Amino acid sequence: MQPTPTLPRTLTAVLGEHIGARVRVCGLVEAVRDQKRMQFLVLADGSGQVQVIHEKRGEADPLAAQIAALTPGSAIAVIGRVASAPGVKLGGLEIIAETLELHSLADSPLPIAPDSALEKQIDWRAVSLRRPDQRLVFRVQTTLEAAMRDWWLARDFIEIHSPKLMGTFSESGAEAFKVAYFGERTAYLAQSPQFYKQMAMAAGFERVFEIGPAFRAEPSFTPRHETEFTGLDMEIAWTADHHELMALEESWLAHAIARVAEVHGAEIRERLGAEVIVPTTPFPKVTLAEAQAIVRATGHTPAKSDDLDPEGERRLCAHIARATGHQFVFVTDYPASARAFYHRRYDDRPDLTQGFDLLWNGLEITTGAQREHRYDTLRAQAIERGYALDPLQPYLDFFRYGCPPHGGMGVGLARVLMALLGRSSVRETTFISRTRPSRNLGAKSDAKKVG
Amino acid sequence: MQPTPTLPRTLTAVLGEHIGARVRVCGLVEAVRDQKRMQFLVLADGSGQVQVIHEKRGEADPLAAQIAALTPGSAIAVIGRVASAPGVKLGGLEIIAETLELHSLADSPLPIAPDSALEKQIDWRAVSLRRPDQRLVFRVQTTLEAAMRDWWLARDFIEIHSPKLMGTFSESGAEAFKVAYFGERTAYLAQSPQFYKQMAMAAGFERVFEIGPAFRAEPSFTPRHETEFTGLDMEIAWTADHHELMALEESWLAHAIARVAEVHGAEIRERLGAEVIVPTTPFPKVTLAEAQAIVRATGHTPAKSDDLDPEGERRLCAHIARATGHQFVFVTDYPASARAFYHRRYDDRPDLTQGFDLLWNGLEITTGAQREHRYDTLRAQAIERGYALDPLQPYLDFFRYGCPPHGGMGVGLARVLMALLGRSSVRETTFISRTRPSRNLGAKSDAKKVG
Repeated sequence: MQPTPTLPRTLTAVLGEHIGARVRVCGLVEAVRDQKRMQFLVLADGSGQVQVIHEKRGEADPLAAQIAALTPGSAIAVIGRVASAPGVKLGGLEIIAETLELHSLADSPLPIAPDSALEKQIDWRAVSLRRPDQRLVFRVQTTLEAAMRDWWLARDFIEIHSPKLMGTFSESGAEAFKVAYFGERTAYLAQSPQFYKQMAMAAGFERVFEIGPAFRAEPSFTPRHETEFTGLDMEIAWTADHHELMALEESWLAHAIARVAEVHGAEIRERLGAEVIVPTTPFPKVTLAEAQAIVRATGHTPAKSDDLDPEGERRLCAHIARATGHQFVFVTDYPASARAFYHRRYDDRPDLTQGFDLLWNGLEITTGAQREHRYDTLRAQAIERGYALDPLQPYLDFFRYGCPPHGGMGVGLARVLMALLGRSSVRETTFISRTRPSRNLGAKSDAKKVG
Repeated sequence: MQPTPTLPRTLTAVLGEHIGARVRVCGLVEAVRDQKRMQFLVLADGSGQVQVIHEKRGEADPLAAQIAALTPGSAIAVIGRVASAPGVKLGGLEIIAETLELHSLADSPLPIAPDSALEKQIDWRAVSLRRPDQRLVFRVQTTLEAAMRDWWLARDFIEIHSPKLMGTFSESGAEAFKVAYFGERTAYLAQSPQFYKQMAMAAGFERVFEIGPAFRAEPSFTPRHETEFTGLDMEIAWTADHHELMALEESWLAHAIARVAEVHGAEIRERLGAEVIVPTTPFPKVTLAEAQAIVRATGHTPAKSDDLDPEGERRLCAHIARATGHQFVFVTDYPASARAFYHRRYDDRPDLTQGFDLLWNGLEITTGAQREHRYDTLRAQAIERGYALDPLQPYLDFFRYGCPPHGGMGVGLARVLMALLGRSSVRETTFISRTRPSRNLGAKSDAKKVG
């Protein structure tokens, strides 16, 4: 058995309530200073940090020897008395050490420094995520998702977990990962929960949400793309059109961002230098045609006539921010040519979809649309794309036995955090990054680096 | 554009508040009865059902023609006046139809009947999930997960989303699905979030949870196994041993089950014939050695000397239920030979792990353990298993730069629902089933079935 604690653990954040008392603190060593007469160490736990001191007792001083042997990162528990120390930055107190348990001695030196490049921070997540500013990203993620779910639950949404192993691909085939399924057939990793959240609509679930992984074999390496990312998805039945969906999304986002501002606003400002601004509703809205005119007027010609490119998205958001002071803008009514075959089109404008994207500070965070729920029309739009119907048939079958009108959207969690926290890459707001090249898959090449 | 609603939608559940008023109800047709003078249809939405009636007006009666053409499953909106009708089972009211919008006409007949075999129910989820008893399973899932998250959030857990694409396998290799990663290398689908929730411990996150998919290339087809399932995972730092973990799990489960009983207890009894019993804590606990003695005493010899087989699990739970009246039992202290190499062993009994399983009504729903957090010991235990260290090195590296003692558990969501709702297969409590054989992957074979 490992040593049984003689005292229950006290978190460093509440030590102020224990001045004069003996406590047991547990955490990782942040720094050790071994001076002639005194030893100082900083211990960090999930709640904060504390300075621990020990006055050397000359020759036979096993505690001094223990402290002298400590390395940054080592996991220890210290029992000692809490003393007021107005001069000490960390809470104006310190712990006078009595005993120390060493649970894990860290190799020295650590493989990365606080100022190492992002690439190295990602290679050594177990070390880089110890930084309070990096852990904050995932505390914010926790609060953000909880607030989003509260919004969904208050509106009777049903939570689903759709399968990630599929018999066909849910978006375009080019970016689907292939899985060998018992040597019986090839399965594909879901690029989104699209097909199955629509199936839930046919099943009469009416309102569903899912937070889960999505997989895209993105050949390109950009600050906005991961080959695996966490999608925030919702689908709603009996929506009249995409404007109803956008109204829902802006309400949902404003609610979640307000919660983050309330819980973490000050710490985000202090640690990340970002200001969380709770958006007003409704959000600004422009059609793609209007968006392109705005972008062209800034002197940039979008790469495609039926879509916006990243530069165009940045310029559009900059224009909207100047004109309205708003960080968000919905871009609506994309040409059918630029959207998935299942996006609903206007009855009187079959070349235009009831699809929308949401941009935040120049970054696309959402793609959504009213869906085509009519079997014959959906089938015709698949044929028009030149898709083979046989593999699509199980999806098309969802619509053969009755399906209400519906729509929904998919939102990238890491992109929302990137925009919310003013980060420059989704890699900073993703727990474990997955990209091409595959060096960060936990590959042998990594093992060799540390061999 | 599709017809703009002339009235906002009213849910059938609240029609009682609208007697005498004109309303718009939206849903799927459950049944149509076309009589000489009268037409009756039952419309179902997410909140309930209502009877809609129409008195035929002889020759020129387009509404009568619309109703006559309806098929079960068709998606419609009806505008009409709500009338009190004490004789009518569905809420003692009916809607006298004025206009009807047909949004989607269902093929007839439906591919399955309410009494079709489970296999067919699973083949046609878009239809089978329309049954209120089947939808209830996922409404319960929604409530259960929300309550579990509330418990975690009240205790400062951080929510993580660990990658499902891995460079090596997280459990035993035999059951890992292989993914071609850009033709550069082979990736594996995560069999659990094990490695990365432990990495979070080394990173000082201290308490994490994740709800997400796990993938096991289960060659066998049993009522307890899916090749893809939703895992409920948590990991906690600074735990003294597995008894601390079991105390946390029973508190977490009791909280979540109490919430389900409160919100859905009556409906679960009525629709599924199951009684939700909120467990008392602590749960009964036996060591594996004790469990095997109990099972042998019932006249069954477990297939393995270091584990329980399904029959043994059923007999143990039956015994505990008789002896204590409790539906749950923890089985602890498994031999190292039966557990993963990362399970912590007793310092004075290196052949025994601080690992546990939780059984509920004869079904294993949890595997958990205090983990081995010491790099050298963990590495030695991997070598003892004969594992190649090179692919494991990125995992082992998590422990090289300091890691607190920790432990955690993984719980199968569909199994919890199976035990909670008294179902006989996880297929009934899984949104979309994934098993071998691969017929239910949305395969071409399905398409052929419906030509």
